[in-house]
Formats: sequence, C-alpha cells, structure tokens
Amino acid sequence: MDYKVLDKNSVIEYLLEIKEIKNFFESEEIEAKEIGDGNLNFVYLVSLIDNPEKSMIVKQAVPYLRCVGEEFPLSRERMTYEIRALDKFYSIFPNFVPRVYYSSEEMSLVAMEYLSNHIIMREGLINRVKYENFSEHISTYMAATLFYTSSLSLSSVDKRDLMAKFNQNVELCKLTEDLVFSFAFMEHETNDNANVESNENAQKLFADRKFKAKVLGLKYTFMTQSDALLHGDLHTGSIMINSDETYVIDPEFAFVGPFGFDVGALLANLVNNYIHHSIVTKDEEFQKWLLHVIKDTLEKFSEKFLEFWAESKETALLVDGYLDSETLDTYKNNFVKNILKDSVGFAGCKIARRIYGVAGVEEIRGINDITLRREAEAMALRIAREFVMNYERIENTDEILEIIKSAR
Amino acid sequence: MDYKVLDKNSVIEYLLEIKEIKNFFESEEIEAKEIGDGNLNFVYLVSLIDNPEKSMIVKQAVPYLRCVGEEFPLSRERMTYEIRALDKFYSIFPNFVPRVYYSSEEMSLVAMEYLSNHIIMREGLINRVKYENFSEHISTYMAATLFYTSSLSLSSVDKRDLMAKFNQNVELCKLTEDLVFSFAFMEHETNDNANVESNENAQKLFADRKFKAKVLGLKYTFMTQSDALLHGDLHTGSIMINSDETYVIDPEFAFVGPFGFDVGALLANLVNNYIHHSIVTKDEEFQKWLLHVIKDTLEKFSEKFLEFWAESKETALLVDGYLDSETLDTYKNNFVKNILKDSVGFAGCKIARRIYGVAGVEEIRGINDITLRREAEAMALRIAREFVMNYERIENTDEILEIIKSAR
Repeated sequence: MDYKVLDKNSVIEYLLEIKEIKNFFESEEIEAKEIGDGNLNFVYLVSLIDNPEKSMIVKQAVPYLRCVGEEFPLSRERMTYEIRALDKFYSIFPNFVPRVYYSSEEMSLVAMEYLSNHIIMREGLINRVKYENFSEHISTYMAATLFYTSSLSLSSVDKRDLMAKFNQNVELCKLTEDLVFSFAFMEHETNDNANVESNENAQKLFADRKFKAKVLGLKYTFMTQSDALLHGDLHTGSIMINSDETYVIDPEFAFVGPFGFDVGALLANLVNNYIHHSIVTKDEEFQKWLLHVIKDTLEKFSEKFLEFWAESKETALLVDGYLDSETLDTYKNNFVKNILKDSVGFAGCKIARRIYGVAGVEEIRGINDITLRREAEAMALRIAREFVMNYERIENTDEILEIIKSAR
Repeated sequence: MDYKVLDKNSVIEYLLEIKEIKNFFESEEIEAKEIGDGNLNFVYLVSLIDNPEKSMIVKQAVPYLRCVGEEFPLSRERMTYEIRALDKFYSIFPNFVPRVYYSSEEMSLVAMEYLSNHIIMREGLINRVKYENFSEHISTYMAATLFYTSSLSLSSVDKRDLMAKFNQNVELCKLTEDLVFSFAFMEHETNDNANVESNENAQKLFADRKFKAKVLGLKYTFMTQSDALLHGDLHTGSIMINSDETYVIDPEFAFVGPFGFDVGALLANLVNNYIHHSIVTKDEEFQKWLLHVIKDTLEKFSEKFLEFWAESKETALLVDGYLDSETLDTYKNNFVKNILKDSVGFAGCKIARRIYGVAGVEEIRGINDITLRREAEAMALRIAREFVMNYERIENTDEILEIIKSAR
C-alpha cells in the first residue's frame, strides 16, 4: 500500500486488512485511541471494544515532527530504522524488547506489544521508585545487543550487511551530531535561550575551549567508529519498566556506531536523576541506591560482555588459533575497559547537552525554583566536565562514582 | 548487456558498440593484445592497427582469481569498487589517477588511459631509479583523497552516501583482514610454507604474543574505523611512475576505513625497498635517498592535509563558530599526528605480513641467496616489531627513520 497518514478511523480500516492483526484480536470489533505524548510520531492504543485488556500499540511516522507540525519536516524513514532495530534487538534478546506483531516500512508503521503494566522509567525515578532488577536487566540488554552486533561476534560479511541496513539513517545521526555534540555548547537558535541569556554558567560552558576540544574528539568517534548496532538514544525515557520487567523502546536513532555511546547515554541519565535528588528531594538513601545501580550496571555490563565473548568462536576479528588464551584474556579485558572509558566521555557530553540545548531532561530543566535549578545545572556541569576531560584516565567504576559524589 | 567473459576478439566487438570508445579511436580498425601480468583480471592493450601509439587499457574481472583459475572463485564485483574508486579519486585529483574512457559495472569492465611511458614503481626502485617528484606527488594524492572523502570535509549525509557505495566490498576487505592481520602470523596453509618450516625467525614471530596482540588491535581499527575512502592496497606495485608523473592504479580494495592504512601501506613498501638495498645492493646513497623520500612524503602529507583542512568550511565535524582558531589548530595538529602514529602501526603489520604470508614482495622474497634472504627477513622483522609495538608513542618522522636505520 502506498504511504498515507492514518487517523484513528482509517487506522482501524487499515489494520483489519492485515492477517497478523486479525489473528491477534480474533475479532473485527476494535477501536483506536490516540495517545498524545509522542514528540515525533502518531501513536494509537488499539483495543478490543468488549475487552480493552486485549490491546496493542500502533505507531506511524509522519514526514514532519509531530509535536511542531508540518513546518518542521523530518523524513518518515526514521520508522524504517526503528522497525529494523526492533526486529534485530528482539532476535538477540526478546525479554527486553516489545514484541512486534506487524510492521510496514512503506507505511512507516509498526504494531506492537502494549506494555500496560509499565511506566516510563524517568517518571519512576523522579518519584523515587527503586527498580531492584534494573541493573541486571539493562546490563544484559546492552551487553547482548552491542556484543552480538559487533565485529567481535559477527563475520566480516554479516557485519557489513548490518551496516548497510542502518547506514542511511542519516537524518537522525545528524540530529545527534548537531544537538549532542555541537549546538548545546555554543550560541545557537535551537538552545533553550531563555535559560542561556545572562546565565553565567552557560557563558562559562560556551567559552570552555578545552572542554569543547574534547567534545569534538568524542563527536569524531561518534561519527566514524563502527563498533556495533546502537539503540542510539538510550535514556531513561526510552525505557518502560516495573519491578519485574524492563523494556527498551523507541530505537529510531539506531545505527552502527561506538559501543560507549549507548552505555554513556544510560549513565548520563542516571546521573541526571542523581543530581535531581541531590538538589531537590535531598533523599540520601535514594541517591545511594542510584550510585549502587550505576556501579552494578557498568560492572555487570563488562562481565556479561566478556561472557558472551568467551562463548564466541571464529569471528571477523578472531581467527581460531591466532593467539593464546592468556594474552587474549588481557586483550579482552583492556578492550572492555576502553568501552567503559568511552562511555564516561559520551556520558559527559550527554549530561552537558541537556543543560542548555534543545530537549532538556525533566530532572533538571523541570526544576521550578530558579535557585535550585541553577544549583542543579552547576552540579551537572561539574560532573560533565570531569567526565569529558578525564574519561581516558578512568580505570574502574569507583572512580566514576567518586566524580559524581564530589560534585555536590 | 548481460555479463560474459570477453576474449581478445570479442572484446573488440564489444568495444566497437560503445560511443565513447569509437570517439576515442575515430576508427574501427583496432586490435587487442592480452597483457599477461594481472593476478586477478584479464587486461588488454587495445590499439589502432595503423597507429599503435593510440591505445587504451581494457580490464575485465572474471568471477575467479585469474592467476589460479576457476577453482579459486572470487566474485567479479571487485571491479564495481575499482570503477567507483577510480571515478571518485579522479574527481578529487585527476593528475594522479588514470583517466577512465568507459566503464560498466554490469560487465565488470573498465577502459582507461594507457600509461605507456610509466613503469611499476617497485621495479624502478629495485633498479635504484630516484623519482625526485614522487614525494611531492604521492603526498598530495594521499592528503587529497583521504581528506576530501572524510567527515572532516564531507557533510554527514554525503559521508554516509560514500560509505554506502563501498560498504559491500566485503570479499576484498575480508582478504585484507585475513592476509594482512591474521594468517601471516600463525601456521596457515596460505603462507609460503617452504619458507616457514624450520625457519627460526618465522617460529619466533608466530610465538610473539605481545606483537600479535598489538596486531589484533590494529586489525580491529582496520575493520571498524570509518575515516575516509581508502585505496586499500597502496603499495609500490600499485603505482605507475616516471620522472615527471605518478599514477595510482588498481583501487579494487577501496572502502571507507582508517586514514593510516593507505599511508602505512606506502611507508611499508618504501621500507621493504630500503631493506633490499641495505642487504643486497648495499647502495648507501640510494638508502639515504629512500629515507629522505619517507620523511618528505610523511611530512608533506601532514602539511597538505592541514592545508586542505584550513580551506574547509561547515562539515560533518565542524560547525562554524564552535571553537576558536587557536584551540582548533591544536586539535588539528594532534589529529594529524595520530594519523602518523596509526600509519606506523599499519606499516609494521604490512611489512611483517610480506615475510611469510601469501604474496611476498620481490625486494625480500625475491632474494635468491638464502643467507641474504634470511638477513633481510630478520631486518624486516625488527622494523615491523618496533613499528607495531611503539606506534602510539611516535612523535615525529625522525623517530621513524631512527627505527629503520637502527635495524641493520
């Protein structure tokens, strides 16, 4: 079917033509409700009229930014990469990725599992909910998706096929290049300029040459290091969670990039939440729990990455019999330590860009009290700067926690 | 036209159907002679019968390795990448790339300029011919092709389009991964095994864990660092030269990879020639000239790369106004120094792999006297090891020359 934008009525007509959807509902008596919180896309909750428990989410991309309107064009091909990434990640580890019932690249549409008992993790963390299984889940998700889409696991040919599938996700890659690594550190129209003008901290950041030169190095790595298939936007707003389950959603930024970018995005967002509770709720126990989660997630990520690697044979990188196992173990441990270092560098960029750049995080920009908000910004800047200036020297997770704790 | 293998008669019939070819010869009285030295492809010299000065080269890839036969299949798509690379490099700097009159990806065929007054540079160097313009030419070629196909010059979108055009050159990328970075350093059937058995140096190399771990790191960089469009096999056998002109041919290994790989390949092959003259001809003046060429080429490469960069505006990496020019200059100088470091590392791999791996270089494996050959191998191993173990610490070209000179 040729592409057309669906509304809550035509989406039902469309869905009822699809075998997979009819099999799911086992009835034609279904209805769609628009769920209004998508920035980019139209999102419908489609349910059986008689039994709303039986539901699915249907998401369609339009060729513009939904939250702004048709005057902000953004090609709908982003959904192509979301579909491909959901499919790829689900095939690696189905536990942490919503199930897709049907998708169409032509229609820029995906129909998938409705996570009715889960909330956006950022909201949970702001409300001080402790997710005790989170570090176990997310470390497995990151280690598996990154390892199994890398040259450490794939053959040379399969790796290049994977790159080809995601290489043309140019618009969203460029969005990250601009917004995460450039515009947020200079005078720019996309910034939250009400917050920048006559703000001493902002002026200091924009004038911080050494910091910006290091950011440039990390930007270059982001643009040219083809390690593995990334989620590309792994913040706590892309995670649906409850006490038992963790799901990673919205991988429309997926492309083959540096390992450290996904791990760093998650680290940055946990740090942003830590800053919020340091300044606003002052809940020390929750802060302690967050530090524990950061340490546990990073350490489990490294362990699991190495476990997957140990199980792996004959890949693009390693020819059987090339190197003795002792030397190889040293090589692998250094390799994973380097992922940790890069993650800290990327986390620094991600924390810093949320302060004045477009799309701030609720934990900091959402603070109404201006004095407290300025305090939170200053704390975020201190951590971001330490991360970016020193990431290459980080040797273990304790050093990361030390930077976070000393910034108060 | 559907693909079919041409012979010296059918190639003429084929060519006479093509407008560009008829325009070139302005006559139908042409003939083809097979030129027998291609390892991979069929190569014809096509000339006017009445005036053989008017000639062109026609090259067709067959779906196997020509020098072995149909029992060694190698997909003919390698010609697709050679055609695309010739086109791309010619568009950047026509002076150093043969002119293409006609090409067909479907027929895996290219018709191009016949370089009648040029010889393969390796032969010239073995015969101690000094090419006084070479360092000027090749430094320009490398700086221009690498800079103008990188994220330092292209927009984000154009860079990804370029990657897409070369990403599927999987077979030849895998050949390099295996032959340059793995098989030549372990017991393997593809090695020159007559030269390996009961050869103490070979056994020592194969057991050199520290060296091999560093090679593994460089292999990973080769596989995953997407800096710029590489020639991919830039040795002195891929250069046609005379005292006035330098042409780089045979870019079938082209793909978007690390800057240092092309520069390193050239460095390695100049070093191999230096070793030859140290051990065989003992011509000290020529050795001195070679060292001068190495230094001059590397320094001019860095200078020109920085010159091109200085002329460049608004690219994938650099947003106008992001960084002051002083900090930016420091950043750029470090960037280019890092290319030099990586080049030394890759040169070490390239030198070492030619010693026992498949396809040795004439300068070393061609030495008939077994004592001298063993001496040359040992010298090559010493340089290769120093290069690979210490490349990250190289600060300038003098340190590179020091390693080469001290290895005798």
